[in-house]
Amino acid sequence: MINVVKLGGDIIFNKKLLISSLKNFSKLDGYKIIVHGGGKIADLVSNKMGYNIKIINGRRITDKTTLEIVVMTYSGLINKKIVSKLQSLGLNPIGFSGADGNLVKSYKRSIKKIDYGNVGNLTINSINTDLIKSLFRIGIIPVLSPITHDGNGNLLNTNADTIASYLSISLSKTYKVILSYCFNKLGVLKNLKDENSYYYKIEETFFQKLKNKKIINKGMIPKLENAFYALKNGVSKVTISHPNYLNHPTKKTILCLG
Amino acid sequence: MINVVKLGGDIIFNKKLLISSLKNFSKLDGYKIIVHGGGKIADLVSNKMGYNIKIINGRRITDKTTLEIVVMTYSGLINKKIVSKLQSLGLNPIGFSGADGNLVKSYKRSIKKIDYGNVGNLTINSINTDLIKSLFRIGIIPVLSPITHDGNGNLLNTNADTIASYLSISLSKTYKVILSYCFNKLGVLKNLKDENSYYYKIEETFFQKLKNKKIINKGMIPKLENAFYALKNGVSKVTISHPNYLNHPTKKTILCLG
Repeated sequence: MINVVKLGGDIIFNKKLLISSLKNFSKLDGYKIIVHGGGKIADLVSNKMGYNIKIINGRRITDKTTLEIVVMTYSGLINKKIVSKLQSLGLNPIGFSGADGNLVKSYKRSIKKIDYGNVGNLTINSINTDLIKSLFRIGIIPVLSPITHDGNGNLLNTNADTIASYLSISLSKTYKVILSYCFNKLGVLKNLKDENSYYYKIEETFFQKLKNKKIINKGMIPKLENAFYALKNGVSKVTISHPNYLNHPTKKTILCLG
Repeated sequence: MINVVKLGGDIIFNKKLLISSLKNFSKLDGYKIIVHGGGKIADLVSNKMGYNIKIINGRRITDKTTLEIVVMTYSGLINKKIVSKLQSLGLNPIGFSGADGNLVKSYKRSIKKIDYGNVGNLTINSINTDLIKSLFRIGIIPVLSPITHDGNGNLLNTNADTIASYLSISLSKTYKVILSYCFNKLGVLKNLKDENSYYYKIEETFFQKLKNKKIINKGMIPKLENAFYALKNGVSKVTISHPNYLNHPTKKTILCLG
């Protein structure tokens, strides 16, 4: 069994929450992998460098300077902080960008209406599962930052939720995979003003209804789409939860097909 | 046989030279490892972030903010640039900080006259050679950034020349190791104003004379000390060269004992 745990940017941004998340992660049985984001810290670094962040439709435009900033922030600052903390918890992680060991290969997103810049899209063959299996054999826990590469020497900024989904699908060919999207809420909220109002279960048909009625939060839509995509393609279980309840059997939103 | 190649900050800073260095590295036979610096780019990033670099006796003071900057720059920006370029040259590298896979463990330098901050010193047991052997077995080329960890969750800034030396010594217990320090000169210069005036060979006794007479450049002394330390502790060959002549048998400064 493999636990793939995605830690969102709001967790990474909160030092105490990050530490408690890593402690909970360390207690999970079996093989495990972290995929992390870090957008909020990339915003901070951009600001400190006097560089304006460009966002269109809620997505970052990754021009050349922004790419350098996200590579530094995600694959450097955040990734190494997580790795060193996990080392102190007795685990043996190695931090990865997608270029390391050719772990996640992508292709640059083509320009349609908007040029998102140096952004990588994934395919069903993007994940180097052979490397992950080799790492598991020598006791290594992979920690993935959301930077991929095209194989031609170019790094690309890639959505961490999507990496977690494709990674889980690829590994589900060999292992039973549980994918947990962790963020700073108890689950998908029914009412944004009530932190305790989370759905215990969301079926895909119900999600489509929520989406059509525009009830669901904009930022939550791609996360849920990634989640259902994983479920439909071999992943055994997908949840959306607070990292404090990562190990709790029910205190989270559990997604299901049908 | 293993080639350990240290690429200095002046090479990393020069895009064209970095690419040609990596091409030369890719042509080396046998197992191989890169250790890289990047001080000049860390200085640039510090400046862009409006943060003053503090240097005493030619060494960077690594306070908390400086540590974040060097982790971002060395283990993020530079390391992933090298890794993605090597991938495009048909190699399969993985980039490392010392925390990744517990590859290089250090202890924080104690405060004597000067507090250098979050700086890591190495011991003879710092290098995780078992991991390197496992990586070699699956065709991986390690690319080390000069950030280490203390095992208690703390990252530490560490001299890249020293890492290259200790790494080479540790690997020399199992393999024949050639250590090449590459920088933007043909070798150790007799006359700083004449780029062609490099020494073909420096014996240790001769180095001591140059050092005592203060003929040798300040920045070159620790590099040569690391080099002779490696030679005295099992490393087969140590050279100081321009990366364009990495594969050339004699166009470099060759160090020898006695």
